[in-house]
Amino acid sequence: MDERMVAVVERDGTRDEVAVEEPLEIRVDGAALTVTMRTPGQDEELALGFLYGEGLIDGPRPAGLTEDLANNVVEVSGPLLRDPGERRFYTTSSCGVCGKGSLEEVAVYAPPLGPGPVVDRDVLAGLPDRLRQPTFERTGGLHATGLFTADGELVLVREDVGRHNAMDKVIGRALVDGRVPLSSHVLCVSGRLSFELVQKAAVAGAPILVGVGAPTSLAIELAADRGLTLAGFARRGHVNVYTGAERVALG
Amino acid sequence: MDERMVAVVERDGTRDEVAVEEPLEIRVDGAALTVTMRTPGQDEELALGFLYGEGLIDGPRPAGLTEDLANNVVEVSGPLLRDPGERRFYTTSSCGVCGKGSLEEVAVYAPPLGPGPVVDRDVLAGLPDRLRQPTFERTGGLHATGLFTADGELVLVREDVGRHNAMDKVIGRALVDGRVPLSSHVLCVSGRLSFELVQKAAVAGAPILVGVGAPTSLAIELAADRGLTLAGFARRGHVNVYTGAERVALG
Repeated sequence: MDERMVAVVERDGTRDEVAVEEPLEIRVDGAALTVTMRTPGQDEELALGFLYGEGLIDGPRPAGLTEDLANNVVEVSGPLLRDPGERRFYTTSSCGVCGKGSLEEVAVYAPPLGPGPVVDRDVLAGLPDRLRQPTFERTGGLHATGLFTADGELVLVREDVGRHNAMDKVIGRALVDGRVPLSSHVLCVSGRLSFELVQKAAVAGAPILVGVGAPTSLAIELAADRGLTLAGFARRGHVNVYTGAERVALG
Repeated sequence: MDERMVAVVERDGTRDEVAVEEPLEIRVDGAALTVTMRTPGQDEELALGFLYGEGLIDGPRPAGLTEDLANNVVEVSGPLLRDPGERRFYTTSSCGVCGKGSLEEVAVYAPPLGPGPVVDRDVLAGLPDRLRQPTFERTGGLHATGLFTADGELVLVREDVGRHNAMDKVIGRALVDGRVPLSSHVLCVSGRLSFELVQKAAVAGAPILVGVGAPTSLAIELAADRGLTLAGFARRGHVNVYTGAERVALG
């Protein structure tokens, strides 16, 4: 792990370690696009994964931290595939601001998913235990996302105070490594399963997403809409499968 | 609880309940300000709490859901105290995008905190157990924020798929009830303690914030800067106090 991820604090008269949180501004060709709170380290991956999940880039780009500004600005080379100022949730007008509109927007950026691998239910339930989280172990304060093979082998893990950032870092790294679309892989998250996490997985072409926590209604709807396998509450050898059960075998 | 917060889904050949997630657009005098994913119910409170935490309003305003657009648009009466398009993290130029800039920005909106109450350490450690979470119990998928008296009496609790939203709903409700600034109260959250949660507590004038999870480095820095008592890992009778220990008594 990167030592920039951990800070030492005093509390109750003793020394303790906590996860670092700092703002990060993402710039494209010098223009500020967004600011997110994140844990430093792998900022280029975070930026690339974020832009990919939003349908703004379709492959890796040169990216790097600027030297000044407290190492909290990452610069990415453009151009983008579309105007980032375009309103979200309004790409189709059938419903405006609603869950259905959100699903339709993701459909614009997400590739069709192939059949993908079949994973043993026991392997799926056990993935969180294989999610190495060195910084969480020291601070108790980080979310993690892991990229696994269908056999349950860990390919890549990233940690961040923001659950979306951990996923962005994994997808950004996978982009750089030429692994996207992630059509033969499984993504595993340490927390709950929101709409945005399913969006990021779907846009990256990952056929299977599993989490330790609960899915939301819209996460399940999006997974069903994209044909993605969504599984939650992966704990103590059990797992709930909400969509795409054809990719889960009894083993 | 509100039945709109829960959806029934099929999984593994059985029926299950999950937390509802839907987009909400916040409009001020007809102009769209932001879209957030949230659990429906108490949307007016969410909007008011959000606007207050951003320093955009200084008291309750008329607010209501529009009838159309799938009940996912909340309209608030303006005007706002400042231009919401104003860049965040740049209100002071001393450091630009950095943690210090973030602290300075909050200082603009947050009132000075008074001495506030003193809370028994045992009471503080036990607050999460008093945080009633009826929808979490059915779905396992919601964050909660509770407003407590210094004696540990629950005043108000709100749940949402987004941890920030649960806090916004509590502060919005407290605004409507004339309880803000929350100078004699304790806020308790079911999860981790990020910068933004401390920001919301500080702007609402709450002197004590406790969470079940870990704080981040910037959450601790902001709490120290504002003179707020920040406590984390409140579990099984224990609690870590990171800042403002003068408000915590051995009991």
